[in-house]
Amino acid sequence: MLTLDAAYRRLLARAHPTEPESVPLAEALGRVLADPKVTAAIDVPGFDNSAMDGYAVRAADTPGGLKLAGEITAGASALRPVEPGTAVRIMTGAPIPPGADAVVPVEIATEADTVVEVGAAVPGDHVRLAAHDTRAGDEICLPEALTPPMIAVLASIGIGEVRVRRRPRVAILSTGDELVDVGQALASFQIHDANGVALAAAVREVGGEPVLLPRARDDASEIERVLTRGARDADLIVTSGGVSVGRHDHVRSVLETRGSLDFWRIAVQPGKPLAVGAIGGTTVIGLPGNPVSALVVFELFVRPVVRAMSGLTGDGRLHLRATPTTRIAKDPQRRAFLRVTVWHEDGQMHARPAGGQASSQLRPLAEANALLAVPEGADAAEPGRSYEAIVLGPLDLAHWR
Amino acid sequence: MLTLDAAYRRLLARAHPTEPESVPLAEALGRVLADPKVTAAIDVPGFDNSAMDGYAVRAADTPGGLKLAGEITAGASALRPVEPGTAVRIMTGAPIPPGADAVVPVEIATEADTVVEVGAAVPGDHVRLAAHDTRAGDEICLPEALTPPMIAVLASIGIGEVRVRRRPRVAILSTGDELVDVGQALASFQIHDANGVALAAAVREVGGEPVLLPRARDDASEIERVLTRGARDADLIVTSGGVSVGRHDHVRSVLETRGSLDFWRIAVQPGKPLAVGAIGGTTVIGLPGNPVSALVVFELFVRPVVRAMSGLTGDGRLHLRATPTTRIAKDPQRRAFLRVTVWHEDGQMHARPAGGQASSQLRPLAEANALLAVPEGADAAEPGRSYEAIVLGPLDLAHWR
Repeated sequence: MLTLDAAYRRLLARAHPTEPESVPLAEALGRVLADPKVTAAIDVPGFDNSAMDGYAVRAADTPGGLKLAGEITAGASALRPVEPGTAVRIMTGAPIPPGADAVVPVEIATEADTVVEVGAAVPGDHVRLAAHDTRAGDEICLPEALTPPMIAVLASIGIGEVRVRRRPRVAILSTGDELVDVGQALASFQIHDANGVALAAAVREVGGEPVLLPRARDDASEIERVLTRGARDADLIVTSGGVSVGRHDHVRSVLETRGSLDFWRIAVQPGKPLAVGAIGGTTVIGLPGNPVSALVVFELFVRPVVRAMSGLTGDGRLHLRATPTTRIAKDPQRRAFLRVTVWHEDGQMHARPAGGQASSQLRPLAEANALLAVPEGADAAEPGRSYEAIVLGPLDLAHWR
Repeated sequence: MLTLDAAYRRLLARAHPTEPESVPLAEALGRVLADPKVTAAIDVPGFDNSAMDGYAVRAADTPGGLKLAGEITAGASALRPVEPGTAVRIMTGAPIPPGADAVVPVEIATEADTVVEVGAAVPGDHVRLAAHDTRAGDEICLPEALTPPMIAVLASIGIGEVRVRRRPRVAILSTGDELVDVGQALASFQIHDANGVALAAAVREVGGEPVLLPRARDDASEIERVLTRGARDADLIVTSGGVSVGRHDHVRSVLETRGSLDFWRIAVQPGKPLAVGAIGGTTVIGLPGNPVSALVVFELFVRPVVRAMSGLTGDGRLHLRATPTTRIAKDPQRRAFLRVTVWHEDGQMHARPAGGQASSQLRPLAEANALLAVPEGADAAEPGRSYEAIVLGPLDLAHWR
């Protein structure tokens, strides 16, 4: 069996960023710039402007009564100079007129007729200088998935369209004679195909574009046909089922005979059987058929691959350390990812099982807010020792100092 | 001025969950069930099945040589009983045939011709019992936004369509004579409309459906016309600009004269001017025009409102406490939300300014991974004291115990 770390490195080596495409800035949330370095073509702000609603003045004239000589609104196109002894009403964001060197806020001014009584000001008061946020020529580096504030920064320097990595197209294939679509009635010994919809959701969650392939029976030629067709349009294919040691595990055998197979057993719990290979030049990750194993292995292996294809690094999850409150048994040969609830209490992060740890128990995974990683070698997660936790769900740390 | 907490309570009282709609389970990622309690109609699994590829046996016959009497694959439709002295080849997930009470894994069995030599087994070995994950009639409670594992649970109990809250439609209106679309050239004293695209992204990020209204000039009748039309189809309207004390701040005045105005100044920094009201029965939240203020006030007020309309509570952010490494000055009258970088080192969470704290400095907000909340009364965030941090971006806590 491969260690998780070796498998992870070999898989990541196969993940190449997708080619760039142009999208309008308004649709760029969560996308990743093909080139994270952006050079500003303009100053922001482009001109000295007022930080307050008030009066543009010559500071030397203050405090005192000044002759009111007009008004400047945001968006004004031409400016008359402020002469000595005068003040001009000015709105937040409006350009500072020539001659003026300060703004007196309305709160400390009184306007009566054509005269305004203003409080004291020193040069620069409530003036936002041109280029104080960004100067033309500045290099702005945005290597992460674009957030609303990053989008605002790009908008402020006038960029209406961005070159981003295309969302990886991830084809999903469920295999198994026993599978029936969710929503359809079950005959004897059939089960619902939970993996198709859940893996598609997991792909979407990590920023990929899922494509559900037609489900295949446990039949080598059918699996080969669907994989070959799916490989044409996909950046990655994720299958579930058919990768174990049984005689009807055809995903593995199809990869071996019609494509290439890289490795297929890894020392993780749940999820030992994993086939990684390629067909028609497209990487195929063959997950176990059991939904718990499929989703945990997706989290550990497929999620970072889709992120790498999108131009990101790592798994994008919060990692913590937590200490179990009870002993949780595991297979000593494999690194276990226990389904746990982590919480903060008395200055410590604790973990307790979110339910049974059998790989056939799906509800504990849905109820867990973290996976607790317990290393190879140990036969249990022990109370009193801390382990790395991969946070998957809501967590309140407001009182953790 | 209203305190932030009072404003928050008054605003949340206006947020009503949207009506439910049915969506296919495959499209339900991130959606919220209208009724979080789901009753399982079937057992999961529906039948006793094998946890391994191996041989279904009578445990009392093991260890020893057994006559091989056929094979059961997953999806088998009829089962012959396992007679004493015989074994049946069985695949993972396939039903346990009558008579058998254990499975011997292939790893400890040797098949030769019509005989299989099996290792020892006790009753129940490698058998997953029917209903051990979920029993028909069990109530499953899923109150949070649906995750891939929750979708798998719903699929496993055969639910192909779910009733979820409709995504709140949030109309976005930018106001200001000085604004120009991003991507267009600026004339003198114009600026790009960063708020339109950034607020739309923020709405999408929190699960709402943004609708960009045509931008309005600083003109009361134009603003009234756009707001009235926008109110017809929106669950919420978010405007930017026109809510301060200036004579050209028409959003506030339109709400006052044509709809209703609830309050309009709150003790937060950045973001003092805030108008909350209604027009045509739709709540309007009037944000400041400055993009930093608009996005911070969105974070504090609009985000929880859109979540409440979606059926969720709180802001969905990780909250921590962090200690500044330097003094960061603030307005003592208001609660400040400083743009900071938080990180973990030497067993502590630290915070440093992500850049200048002027509300006209947008890049520090894009570079910050947290907002540090410093209470009213204090004139600075002080080193040596810890403050609540609202985490907005990537954070590595892997080594925090």
